[in-house]
Amino acid sequence: MLLHLSTWPEIEAYLKTSQTIVVPIGSNEQHGPTGLLGTDWLCPEIIAHEAQKAEPNLLVGPTFNIGMAQHHLGFPGTISLRPSTFMAAIGDWCRSLGAHGFTKIYFLNGHGGNVPTIEAAFSELYAEASFGGRPRGFALKLKNWWELKGVMGLATRQFPTGHGSHATPSEIAVTQWAYPDHIKTAEYAPQIAPTGPIREAADFRARYPDGRMGSDPIQATPEKGGELVAEAARGLIEDVAAFSAEVAPT
Amino acid sequence: MLLHLSTWPEIEAYLKTSQTIVVPIGSNEQHGPTGLLGTDWLCPEIIAHEAQKAEPNLLVGPTFNIGMAQHHLGFPGTISLRPSTFMAAIGDWCRSLGAHGFTKIYFLNGHGGNVPTIEAAFSELYAEASFGGRPRGFALKLKNWWELKGVMGLATRQFPTGHGSHATPSEIAVTQWAYPDHIKTAEYAPQIAPTGPIREAADFRARYPDGRMGSDPIQATPEKGGELVAEAARGLIEDVAAFSAEVAPT
Amino acid sequence: MLLHLSTWPEIEAYLKTSQTIVVPIGSNEQHGPTGLLGTDWLCPEIIAHEAQKAEPNLLVGPTFNIGMAQHHLGFPGTISLRPSTFMAAIGDWCRSLGAHGFTKIYFLNGHGGNVPTIEAAFSELYAEASFGGRPRGFALKLKNWWELKGVMGLATRQFPTGHGSHATPSEIAVTQWAYPDHIKTAEYAPQIAPTGPIREAADFRARYPDGRMGSDPIQATPEKGGELVAEAARGLIEDVAAFSAEVAPT
Amino acid sequence: MLLHLSTWPEIEAYLKTSQTIVVPIGSNEQHGPTGLLGTDWLCPEIIAHEAQKAEPNLLVGPTFNIGMAQHHLGFPGTISLRPSTFMAAIGDWCRSLGAHGFTKIYFLNGHGGNVPTIEAAFSELYAEASFGGRPRGFALKLKNWWELKGVMGLATRQFPTGHGSHATPSEIAVTQWAYPDHIKTAEYAPQIAPTGPIREAADFRARYPDGRMGSDPIQATPEKGGELVAEAARGLIEDVAAFSAEVAPT
Amino acid sequence: MLLHLSTWPEIEAYLKTSQTIVVPIGSNEQHGPTGLLGTDWLCPEIIAHEAQKAEPNLLVGPTFNIGMAQHHLGFPGTISLRPSTFMAAIGDWCRSLGAHGFTKIYFLNGHGGNVPTIEAAFSELYAEASFGGRPRGFALKLKNWWELKGVMGLATRQFPTGHGSHATPSEIAVTQWAYPDHIKTAEYAPQIAPTGPIREAADFRARYPDGRMGSDPIQATPEKGGELVAEAARGLIEDVAAFSAEVAPT
Amino acid sequence: MLLHLSTWPEIEAYLKTSQTIVVPIGSNEQHGPTGLLGTDWLCPEIIAHEAQKAEPNLLVGPTFNIGMAQHHLGFPGTISLRPSTFMAAIGDWCRSLGAHGFTKIYFLNGHGGNVPTIEAAFSELYAEASFGGRPRGFALKLKNWWELKGVMGLATRQFPTGHGSHATPSEIAVTQWAYPDHIKTAEYAPQIAPTGPIREAADFRARYPDGRMGSDPIQATPEKGGELVAEAARGLIEDVAAFSAEVAPT
Ligand code: NI
Ligand code: NI
Ligand code: NI
Ligand code: NI
Ligand code: NI
Ligand code: NI
Repeated sequence: MLLHLSTWPEIEAYLKTSQTIVVPIGSNEQHGPTGLLGTDWLCPEIIAHEAQKAEPNLLVGPTFNIGMAQHHLGFPGTISLRPSTFMAAIGDWCRSLGAHGFTKIYFLNGHGGNVPTIEAAFSELYAEASFGGRPRGFALKLKNWWELKGVMGLATRQFPTGHGSHATPSEIAVTQWAYPDHIKTAEYAPQIAPTGPIREAADFRARYPDGRMGSDPIQATPEKGGELVAEAARGLIEDVAAFSAEVAPT
Repeated sequence: MLLHLSTWPEIEAYLKTSQTIVVPIGSNEQHGPTGLLGTDWLCPEIIAHEAQKAEPNLLVGPTFNIGMAQHHLGFPGTISLRPSTFMAAIGDWCRSLGAHGFTKIYFLNGHGGNVPTIEAAFSELYAEASFGGRPRGFALKLKNWWELKGVMGLATRQFPTGHGSHATPSEIAVTQWAYPDHIKTAEYAPQIAPTGPIREAADFRARYPDGRMGSDPIQATPEKGGELVAEAARGLIEDVAAFSAEVAPT
Repeated sequence: MLLHLSTWPEIEAYLKTSQTIVVPIGSNEQHGPTGLLGTDWLCPEIIAHEAQKAEPNLLVGPTFNIGMAQHHLGFPGTISLRPSTFMAAIGDWCRSLGAHGFTKIYFLNGHGGNVPTIEAAFSELYAEASFGGRPRGFALKLKNWWELKGVMGLATRQFPTGHGSHATPSEIAVTQWAYPDHIKTAEYAPQIAPTGPIREAADFRARYPDGRMGSDPIQATPEKGGELVAEAARGLIEDVAAFSAEVAPT
Repeated sequence: MLLHLSTWPEIEAYLKTSQTIVVPIGSNEQHGPTGLLGTDWLCPEIIAHEAQKAEPNLLVGPTFNIGMAQHHLGFPGTISLRPSTFMAAIGDWCRSLGAHGFTKIYFLNGHGGNVPTIEAAFSELYAEASFGGRPRGFALKLKNWWELKGVMGLATRQFPTGHGSHATPSEIAVTQWAYPDHIKTAEYAPQIAPTGPIREAADFRARYPDGRMGSDPIQATPEKGGELVAEAARGLIEDVAAFSAEVAPT
Repeated sequence: MLLHLSTWPEIEAYLKTSQTIVVPIGSNEQHGPTGLLGTDWLCPEIIAHEAQKAEPNLLVGPTFNIGMAQHHLGFPGTISLRPSTFMAAIGDWCRSLGAHGFTKIYFLNGHGGNVPTIEAAFSELYAEASFGGRPRGFALKLKNWWELKGVMGLATRQFPTGHGSHATPSEIAVTQWAYPDHIKTAEYAPQIAPTGPIREAADFRARYPDGRMGSDPIQATPEKGGELVAEAARGLIEDVAAFSAEVAPT
Repeated sequence: MLLHLSTWPEIEAYLKTSQTIVVPIGSNEQHGPTGLLGTDWLCPEIIAHEAQKAEPNLLVGPTFNIGMAQHHLGFPGTISLRPSTFMAAIGDWCRSLGAHGFTKIYFLNGHGGNVPTIEAAFSELYAEASFGGRPRGFALKLKNWWELKGVMGLATRQFPTGHGSHATPSEIAVTQWAYPDHIKTAEYAPQIAPTGPIREAADFRARYPDGRMGSDPIQATPEKGGELVAEAARGLIEDVAAFSAEVAPT
């Protein structure tokens, strides 16, 4: 089920048999000369929706499409929340879902730069309960889509060199598969982009002038994207099932 | 153009000729027995994307899909931000866009309950400049899709009675047109739901047990939805053009 | 009763028979060449105190005199809260009153620019309860004094042209009636001020150089002010009674 | 001048010769069996307005009437801001006044419980400049009215015993002088209330059941109040003049 | 006991017989030409640890070493929290300790500039309970080390002139006694530093070019420091015992 | 140099030749039956101070001793900041240091649970600059002491089994070496503690009843601790030197 295409009585009924929800989460940020600005929220959305087709009982929430991308603000089109804003928003999503009785909230993430803030947001939510000595009522899980079972192995086989860490051929392949009418081309040099630290936006643009980090995205194809989506969807179904089956300690 | 399906060089090029962007904004909340939970963010997204097809030079940003829906939290599936969180998030979206040189940020809204908070968020953003005695650098505009030229007149002709204010036949018709595979049916009584004040969630559910306010959504059809979308898309193109043409005073 | 001229045992006694309080709320901001800076908080205070004389059992709280007036900061004497600060303060007023057992808190407002932030503040307060699935314990109501029964009709008869929306002859008349020793005169042109959008302070002063919006305040007289106050006071008593009589749904 | 009874052009003119403003600040809180709830904001308002009559060139702003009174929330009628809210509001008042060119902002305070939070608010404002290594642009001063020259000496002569620290005969006398129609009487015991620490509201009410701390307010008379106001008004004029005359170091 | 050199089972056992903890709190800020940057957090730490040696059953927590020192930011090495940050942090310390069952939390302070913010933080914590009409569960106490019994008398005998208020010979003597390898010397003039108001950092450095306020720290010796520490440690043990013995009202 | 045992003129002089500072950062939280509550802030402090002895030109700041330990709040003695508070405090530390001209701020961390929040705090600081399109002025680095060159290899040789992730023999060994008078013993079972997810405090205590995660701390000895400190100190000097030598891109 897609939550946003369901009615409240349908969700009320769903909650009687399952209390798990998957939320695709990402970022809207520059992805080099050929990557879509939406790449990082489109990838987890594409994968989660694909998994939902294979496993209709998987409940997928709306996509959380703007994340923490302050370092990309030097490139037009990037939209970023400050970490403090991002935490507040994740908090309200989870408080809303928790109020309905969801006990397992699974974030499928598409942006490495989101990870620390999402985890800090989880701690902020848990802390509300911890200061009061009471149970939180829900468990939170963050998983990057490229860490789902089988995905990184496949990506390494597909792209033995030039995968890199930003504007990677794997993420671009996924969006090419889903949005074949929006495949972009560009000339860029060097073939494989440099790597280094991530700091403020001005520093980032000076280090990585076209926005790529360590990657050579020309290797992306829709076919490879389709393979990645299939692998990730399988991994997601399995991982969510394991999370749903977890029992709280007593 | 859809921003999220563009690259940063494409947005950089766009900004040389236009500095306007349209952001669909709504809410994910219960919409009665037959309305989709996503209704309020799907409607402005549907209309903005439709307008963008007719006017390719219209730049549409990602959809801001979670808004202020605290009063609907008594119904499963509703996800709400607190007003303070919503304001912080709108602020960061606008600060991001303003940093790229957008000078006209137009929010096409799908949820009446968002209006005060969005306007308060605008004031918070303007205040940053006002306390410093400097220009803000961008102008903000909020428009509800049902207030676009021609739309309310059409809806009144389509639904002379039972339009109501929440889970209206017009908004449900729009989603039926766009998502014909997700048309829901339900029996409900009374035919036209009651009206009254909006307070906290428990009060809301007690007053409006099935979630509707003043509406009889059974009148919705995909065809009527298509008419509404067409009318709204025309109105949007015209309204955005007028906003883009506004000149700041000196 | 005026709360600030009462003792706590008097309020304790009052709460045994009524749980309603009226709070005048406004703004301290420029009101054109002849309007007092306090106009927007003086008007609701004047009206509420007048109503209290006619209906001694009406409890009127201290006046909340600084509101959201960021757009007026280009004119000396304006004092504004940011929306976020304003919301926090309204929240603490209401939490204080709610802690004493007030169940109906009625804000009589004197500044249109306050409306979105006050409503957002109400939602923030309600949301605290809504996330927890519990009743809030009090109901909140916002009413602009010019929307009380009979007032706008009277103002239209008094000022058929040049009423406008800021530094209006009606609000200036009210303060002239109450503070006849502080009636100001000035020459200004054009006779009727321009209208347009409201953005940051620098933009506002450029559009509206003397601070008026759409108004010709020279038409104000103390007599007209007295008529407006009398009409508004009657309307307030009636409106508060109706609010007090409202029964929460169960 | 009273700012709220002035126009913006009058304040613009005032700023050409003086950049000092006096803001009465207090609290709305229980003051024992006979003290008005408004005592702590009425006293500085009464004194400042009286001083302004003697020295018309003294500019007095609107009264900041709600302060930090969390410990009094166990008594009906008390309205309190949390310290964090109070700080934000003081901040916005000062940022507004500073934006107009006021360089000396003088708070005449009527509530001892406000002092730490007001001073913390000052530090928060100064810190904005200090982190940036720049001048703040305005100087802030806090003065309790009972610390103005001559006042405490007079109060000690008027009330050699039973002055106490809350619901004192001196502050009640001031309000009796200004509001002779609202003088209250009550029986209470013991004659002089106990003293002790101040903690949360429940603790406070248990320690001080009728709300007084160390005081015997029956000694208050309007005449004594008038003497106190006269002394304080003289002291205020002198103290503000000295503050205005201060020169910033270079 | 020093909390940080204990295990959790030891603290669990301690709480069965006592619920009091002492937290040294200070600031890391410039202390003139010869004072250590850590002076204000080292002094209460030195005293509390010394007291703990004499009274092993005294529980001393980790030192809260960064406080509110915005005015000292013009001098390298100063680290300051904004008051709002400081309050949040004090709040979380106390909420943590309160969650374990500590009912008496005693802050031994080493920096006068911390006082208002610490007291505001206490009020913020109490307010959480006061708005809810419930007991807070713990009592908070702030004591400056120089106000412990006997200390100021001794300091006045040791330093009859030139004690001053910042970079005082007494505080420097305490650190000389504890850190004899880090005694500094410098030439400075005038012998006794000026005094005056405290505002933003730039103003402070202009008024007090070498960082001292009213003091002549050359008089400090390790011997005098040792006497002060002994006196203060005695005073602390006595004062904490009295605080522990306080019974809450019912 | 230890910053807190230096004067401001010494830091002013230091800044002329180096702009790098090391800040030990950790947490005060339960560390199983035998680990000190201060373990996580003591370890980086011990290592940084040891490195400073070998390399006197290394500037070490005060220890940031309270971090993000919400999950340990079920065990007495734990003191935790919420992530939002922790971020605000890290922010103010860095803004203070940046204001003095430090361009490289290196946090030596002792608590894995701090990592996401510290990184989110870094992003929050960078974002201030990124939204404004300006350079931040300083670079931030986070390093866990066990990730310094050579340390984890040594720990693995010392503790081939039962190292675990919380209350590890390596961290306890480090504190045993530094505080030999505070070595604790206890019986516990199982020998090697379980592992699993980290959520709120109640969940944590249910999963890990004595507070250990995956570890067998009985293997710790002061000698092993000394070896670890020596290795880590060497690694720290090298790592800080590399960070200092980094040149910003242009
Ligand atoms: Ni990506
Ligand atoms: Ni709707
Ligand atoms: Ni007005
Ligand atoms: Ni008082
Ligand atoms: Ni000091
Ligand atoms: Ni540890």
